[in-house]
Amino acid sequence: MSVASEELNVRKVKGVRLGSACAGIKRNDRDDLVVIEAAEGSICAAVFTQNAFCAAPVIVAREHLGHHPRWLLVNSGNANAGTGQRGLDDARRTCRALARLTGSPAERVLPFSTGVIGEYLPVEKIESALPEALSALDEMGWARAARAIMTTDTRPKGVSRTFDLSGVPVTVTGIAKGAGMIHPNMATMLAFIATDANVEQASLQACLSEAVDSSFNLITVDGDTSTNDACVLLATGAAGNPLLNQESADFQLLSRAVREVCEALAEAIVRDGEGATKLMRIEVEQARNEAEARQVAKTIAHSPLVKTAFFASDPNWGRILAAIGRSGCVDLDISRVSIWLGDVLIVENGGRAASYSEEAGRSVMSENDILIRVALGRGSARQRVLTCDLSYDYVRINAEYRT
Amino acid sequence: MSVASEELNVRKVKGVRLGSACAGIKRNDRDDLVVIEAAEGSICAAVFTQNAFCAAPVIVAREHLGHHPRWLLVNSGNANAGTGQRGLDDARRTCRALARLTGSPAERVLPFSTGVIGEYLPVEKIESALPEALSALDEMGWARAARAIMTTDTRPKGVSRTFDLSGVPVTVTGIAKGAGMIHPNMATMLAFIATDANVEQASLQACLSEAVDSSFNLITVDGDTSTNDACVLLATGAAGNPLLNQESADFQLLSRAVREVCEALAEAIVRDGEGATKLMRIEVEQARNEAEARQVAKTIAHSPLVKTAFFASDPNWGRILAAIGRSGCVDLDISRVSIWLGDVLIVENGGRAASYSEEAGRSVMSENDILIRVALGRGSARQRVLTCDLSYDYVRINAEYRT
Repeated sequence: MSVASEELNVRKVKGVRLGSACAGIKRNDRDDLVVIEAAEGSICAAVFTQNAFCAAPVIVAREHLGHHPRWLLVNSGNANAGTGQRGLDDARRTCRALARLTGSPAERVLPFSTGVIGEYLPVEKIESALPEALSALDEMGWARAARAIMTTDTRPKGVSRTFDLSGVPVTVTGIAKGAGMIHPNMATMLAFIATDANVEQASLQACLSEAVDSSFNLITVDGDTSTNDACVLLATGAAGNPLLNQESADFQLLSRAVREVCEALAEAIVRDGEGATKLMRIEVEQARNEAEARQVAKTIAHSPLVKTAFFASDPNWGRILAAIGRSGCVDLDISRVSIWLGDVLIVENGGRAASYSEEAGRSVMSENDILIRVALGRGSARQRVLTCDLSYDYVRINAEYRT
Repeated sequence: MSVASEELNVRKVKGVRLGSACAGIKRNDRDDLVVIEAAEGSICAAVFTQNAFCAAPVIVAREHLGHHPRWLLVNSGNANAGTGQRGLDDARRTCRALARLTGSPAERVLPFSTGVIGEYLPVEKIESALPEALSALDEMGWARAARAIMTTDTRPKGVSRTFDLSGVPVTVTGIAKGAGMIHPNMATMLAFIATDANVEQASLQACLSEAVDSSFNLITVDGDTSTNDACVLLATGAAGNPLLNQESADFQLLSRAVREVCEALAEAIVRDGEGATKLMRIEVEQARNEAEARQVAKTIAHSPLVKTAFFASDPNWGRILAAIGRSGCVDLDISRVSIWLGDVLIVENGGRAASYSEEAGRSVMSENDILIRVALGRGSARQRVLTCDLSYDYVRINAEYRT
């Protein structure tokens, strides 16, 4: 599996073409518009942000989802969020413009936007650039599209997975963007995944929902859930495998591939978190249930004090302990809590481990990829959350974002 | 009422003396030890952190609270948290040391510590400095004590309030420290308040609990609840007013004074928040209930994106709107939400207000003290939370904390 790298090495998906263009939404020197086309007969599953202030394109995409979508229309540079009725009208206008050019109903277009909140969408610029994006449609268009959807991302993110279904090779490829306002509660800000697998609609949605729950929904950069989160999974059926559904023996193969693609994209988003210098994997085990494990892991992951200590490579485990203590675990017996940094036991019986040395802690902290493992000693459930550290650059990027 | 200033102007409380000394816990050039003595017959109320990993002194202070405390023993520079059984033994040893010097039972001493987590308390240093602190006991010792309990605070914090009870002048004076790991869930990291009012025990506790709930429990710097939070209210009765209880007509006078002292100290803590350049008052109104209003206000207050935008004086109201949207309001009708920055209406009907101009927004944002008012349009409950912005210095202070 190839994970996000400067030169994305992602594989085409039979029946899916992508075209990018520069509409000049925020800058005139980069692509900011993408059209993704799925072959006639493709099916589509999607999950969206649970933020009550969801953006206009999210509302329109939800409406259109039941009308056999064939086109995804994506822009970066403007989120079309907090724009009221005019934002909805604008999103629909861009769908109609693409529909006219492709000779299909506007309901078959799903719109997606990412960028600054609260400014009206420059519809004319998008309309003007659509013909160029359509003429660029290409099965090999994934890497260029992965760049076009970036905002504060420093790297494009894409990944592919190939496996066999009844002797037929099947591919799952996905791209994603996101670096700030990352705490997905349904899907993260814009991930587009496609497969040529032949699969039934409800099963495709189940497959996506499960994958998102164990990937994008377990990452956080800053705890801020976006207004524009969306994750789409297209299936063209062009691989020609026998139709899959959730009862098929091979369904798990597809599920696993989609989950692995989502997990790799989610990890790439955290690694590219705004200002991030370190990836932190927070594993909480011996919890009473998964929700409790997730809650403890997220409390640690959201703590600015933990995140700044990791930025400083300071094994300040007291901050981890304080975060666990305030995470809301009912009747937590702190004498049963243990914490490891990498392989180093740092806390046992609610205090510093007898075997712990500051040197051992510092040695783990000097890595860029750090495992924090917490055993609560009150059950057998576990959960893992990914996050990154909090650096000067996070403040700089978000203080300067609109300038 | 005098609020925290470089030169604290706080008034003495009859029956209370404070003595400070340098024990050399973290540095040798500043006071870090305080003894507060209340006259025989004084009563004491207290609230403590709800962090499950509460520090050793918190556990001991809770145990001793029912034994007619007369001495508070406070150190800065070391939190004695995450120190297990040895931490408990150490806290008890310091109580015994003070008890020996004052000829009273150790149970009448409440210990408090603030500073780095996870290091053992230097008990000998504290024992050695106790005689000096006791010889410094003075009714005028408040300002010096307010400095001695500081850690990353840049300013001492203290306030006094005087009022009449049945023709008798009564004073309430309090000092506090706290700048980081501030999201009190019971009381904030170390506030000591005293009054010479004559009041009954249960009523004093009720008075303190109410005041804390509307002051310290409504502030946040970084969302991290401390392991060592404590707030104590001593009442010496030396004013000689007729004994008050909750049924007394005059009880509200005392309650109001204590609440005002708590609110002023809480605001001083946020103003001195680590790296803070701006104070943000977040008022949420028209909520279904107070808990909902508090939840929305706290979600805004905790958002790193909102806090960095305020640091940059950028009226990026989309981030406020996104925070409201993810705050968990059930069935929020976004078309009824309005937001004001100061007097400037910025959002109505879920989008940018027609009358809003970026200039008007920037003008409000250039202030150091900013009101964010949110009307949810679904009820009549309201709540106010104080917070500060997130700056480079927050990251610097917390990245360098242990170096």
